[in-house]
Amino acid sequence: MHPISREREILYTVLNFVPAIYILHRKVLNFEGAIVVMADSSGFTLESVRKSLIRQEDTLVFNLIERAKYPIVPQLYDDGNCPILPGSSDSFLESFVKETEAVQAKFGRYQSPEEHPFFPDKLPESLVLPPRTTQILHSAAASININKAIWDIYINKVLPLIASEGRDDNYTSIAGCDLQCLQALSRRIHYGKFVAEVKFKDAPEEYTPAIQAQDRDALMKLLTFESVEEMVKKRVEKKARVFGQDVTLDSNDSQGNFKVNPSVLPRLYGEWVMPLTKEVQVEYLLRRLD
Amino acid sequence: MHPISREREILYTVLNFVPAIYILHRKVLNFEGAIVVMADSSGFTLESVRKSLIRQEDTLVFNLIERAKYPIVPQLYDDGNCPILPGSSDSFLESFVKETEAVQAKFGRYQSPEEHPFFPDKLPESLVLPPRTTQILHSAAASININKAIWDIYINKVLPLIASEGRDDNYTSIAGCDLQCLQALSRRIHYGKFVAEVKFKDAPEEYTPAIQAQDRDALMKLLTFESVEEMVKKRVEKKARVFGQDVTLDSNDSQGNFKVNPSVLPRLYGEWVMPLTKEVQVEYLLRRLD
Repeated sequence: MHPISREREILYTVLNFVPAIYILHRKVLNFEGAIVVMADSSGFTLESVRKSLIRQEDTLVFNLIERAKYPIVPQLYDDGNCPILPGSSDSFLESFVKETEAVQAKFGRYQSPEEHPFFPDKLPESLVLPPRTTQILHSAAASININKAIWDIYINKVLPLIASEGRDDNYTSIAGCDLQCLQALSRRIHYGKFVAEVKFKDAPEEYTPAIQAQDRDALMKLLTFESVEEMVKKRVEKKARVFGQDVTLDSNDSQGNFKVNPSVLPRLYGEWVMPLTKEVQVEYLLRRLD
Repeated sequence: MHPISREREILYTVLNFVPAIYILHRKVLNFEGAIVVMADSSGFTLESVRKSLIRQEDTLVFNLIERAKYPIVPQLYDDGNCPILPGSSDSFLESFVKETEAVQAKFGRYQSPEEHPFFPDKLPESLVLPPRTTQILHSAAASININKAIWDIYINKVLPLIASEGRDDNYTSIAGCDLQCLQALSRRIHYGKFVAEVKFKDAPEEYTPAIQAQDRDALMKLLTFESVEEMVKKRVEKKARVFGQDVTLDSNDSQGNFKVNPSVLPRLYGEWVMPLTKEVQVEYLLRRLD
């Protein structure tokens, strides 16, 4: 038996029996020797990042289904409809999100590198001690926040795909659903920072020249895997079909009635979620060697 | 043809073609003459109540699945861990819910008869005009709020069924999920007010003697349909199976891996959600003739 094949066999046997080190790591997948890259102390690996991205798909689909219960009520989105500060140009939703983010900031939400406020100006300080978790990201990560783009896309592109204009007086229920969708999108897209970090750590030699040249296009190319993107689009469409059906005791057949049109999901991912995630990855990598 | 059968035929034909008056109303189902009870101007009917209850099952299952991502972190539930008011006996979660409810109250959440705060004391006034919706419930409904019981059951009974103790620093994410579950349970259980109203309106002669005698047991008996309850328990179990599976492109088979153990749902409904809903219904009916 070829010594490499024998090593590979032993490695896969170990990986099968010790799930803690079953890391879907490039150095394992493109196995060229007996190199096993262990997770760092935080348990942060390509596999844990992949699992989080897949799990976040469920969250996003659930939140869109919940939002789709309600119509698009113009009173929530029109400028100057803020009930808190008469005279302000804020919409009801902007005002609601600002006040909610202020509470969440006090309770420490934005100390997590996974969370990004939509209105970072004038947020109150956290009254909770920062978590003891290992710092995974480069410190430059903190300067990347593309929530403004996410907000605009959600309100102007995504919402019209899952709801129609109508009347409904449950403003805070609707605003609460909007906030859940916005936060789920923001968390998913900014998770690109973790994706970029794990990819960089895995193969610094591949990314370093493009980073040193500050070459966005080259980085974008390195980060793009069309076959993976197609698979993700198919999976989120299937999730919308499974989670958005009317479950009855008689059958599982929704007869084409889904709470969110399943075709919205591949579009959401193909046009916005994945491109914006890659934008976050590029921004992060450009600063990775600072 | 028997005149009643002819009337029934006409009625069902009309009902089939005019969905707006397709009311699953006792007077239609137990049809003994040509009585068709129209929905009132708010569109509030037994069928709309039934639809809302079924749709709320999905919401509750989604929220439990989302909460089950995280462990039970004692720092959130232990008394005196409130970061906002040092010296207070509040837990982190109590404090987080109080502050969030204060924001939501300002934006008008508790003007809706479907919403009930967990901490009604000292809530700020709404800054939003009350909705123009028709008043459906008897004014005595406002005095019924069993959120204290719902809180205790959620923290002490439900949470341990869907999560285990562990460490996780994302306190606000976990508290946010807890609040979503608590609010979904509260909305579902207090929806008993609407259930009771539509049942009373449908057959006041059936409920009036027991209300006049203030006879809780008789009312509870009138409100209990064991076969319906069994059906609901089976349906929510199925929903946990469908919504809590790992959806992959290869297959739909979760191989027994569900994000929330499906058997939790019939227990949640059988032991707590349905009994508490009936408690709300009884409380409401006892005051219905005040």
